[in-house]
Amino acid sequence: MKKESNKTSRRKFIKGSAMLTAGIATTPFMSFTNEPQIADTSDSIYLVGPQKGYSPQVGTLLSTMTLMRTWVIGTVKDLSIEQLDFQIDEQSNSIGAMLLHLAATERYYQLNTFDEITWGQWSDDIKNEWDVPMGLGKKGREVIKGNPISYYLDKLEKVREVTKKEFAKRDDDWIMKSEPFFGNQPTNNYAKWFHVCEHESNHRGQIKFIIKRLPS
Amino acid sequence: MKKESNKTSRRKFIKGSAMLTAGIATTPFMSFTNEPQIADTSDSIYLVGPQKGYSPQVGTLLSTMTLMRTWVIGTVKDLSIEQLDFQIDEQSNSIGAMLLHLAATERYYQLNTFDEITWGQWSDDIKNEWDVPMGLGKKGREVIKGNPISYYLDKLEKVREVTKKEFAKRDDDWIMKSEPFFGNQPTNNYAKWFHVCEHESNHRGQIKFIIKRLPS
Repeated sequence: MKKESNKTSRRKFIKGSAMLTAGIATTPFMSFTNEPQIADTSDSIYLVGPQKGYSPQVGTLLSTMTLMRTWVIGTVKDLSIEQLDFQIDEQSNSIGAMLLHLAATERYYQLNTFDEITWGQWSDDIKNEWDVPMGLGKKGREVIKGNPISYYLDKLEKVREVTKKEFAKRDDDWIMKSEPFFGNQPTNNYAKWFHVCEHESNHRGQIKFIIKRLPS
Repeated sequence: MKKESNKTSRRKFIKGSAMLTAGIATTPFMSFTNEPQIADTSDSIYLVGPQKGYSPQVGTLLSTMTLMRTWVIGTVKDLSIEQLDFQIDEQSNSIGAMLLHLAATERYYQLNTFDEITWGQWSDDIKNEWDVPMGLGKKGREVIKGNPISYYLDKLEKVREVTKKEFAKRDDDWIMKSEPFFGNQPTNNYAKWFHVCEHESNHRGQIKFIIKRLPS
């Protein structure tokens, strides 16, 4: 991530503090999505925090997911079909397959955390649509190819729209609900969705590694 | 990330909600690190949320950083010196160099967000210690080698201890302070530290890619 070298902007400094104060002050009483005192960090994707239309913790989580997604899209948006299909070696996944894998991962976490379906117990329709990109590997390499970047970005966007719609219905009690999950230890919804978010960075790291090695 | 398939634990479910309620209820009044009502999510690294000893937003951010770091350590802890030094090709960074790069990144964000030093305007002592791992590339490949995993994990841990100590001194106003930074747009401290966190996932993705291709 390239850093910008700038002096601290006093105006933004004050604005940031004011936003935070407003946001936090309403935290425990938040029940309406249009609570006027709610911090609005939506004027910059780089202002992580509570978001209008979401409970404070859910909105803060969503703002990190939006930021992460922006970085992913910035990395892949100009890739050609050939570049999206490129495999660096026999066992590697293409960038296209990884992008569809991100959509599949988000879809499965929707089913697990919104619909409270035990991991893997999805309907056959869901499995038929998402198991291949979720699993990647040989089958994914065979099936996921020949698509322009718009195909992958549309899939990611459609799934994200569902996440945002469901997030908006939920409160900060929901985000802290937990069940044994990672390592069979108590895992709350925040941790599950943090993983969905950092998982995009995990694959973006691999995507950047591959982009540096694309045939010219 | 392997998923555990478990039924929802009602007990954990209730516990999670209770924790959240306690945590959020004290949010705007949080001023003491030992506030008894504060949610304690420290009994599982997979319970992301407010942490004892930190203001709510800072503690929630820290819990994601702790979770991410645990996943990084789990990926590299058993690697040998030879594996840490391995380069998959001429332009690739070794796993060891990437680990030191994570420590350097966190150190620079400490200076930028805690000491409010403009990005890059570090003292010569700091530059001498951290510029090479921060920059990676040819120089990093020449210099960063021959160290056991304990060397890298100690560096990461020492830097993280400073982050935790400084986080504990700060409140939720600080985490929302912003200045033009990423893309010269208003960027708050939460976004900067989210990047420090997701950046570990970015490199963990590359580290896992390399581990799969280590010479046997």
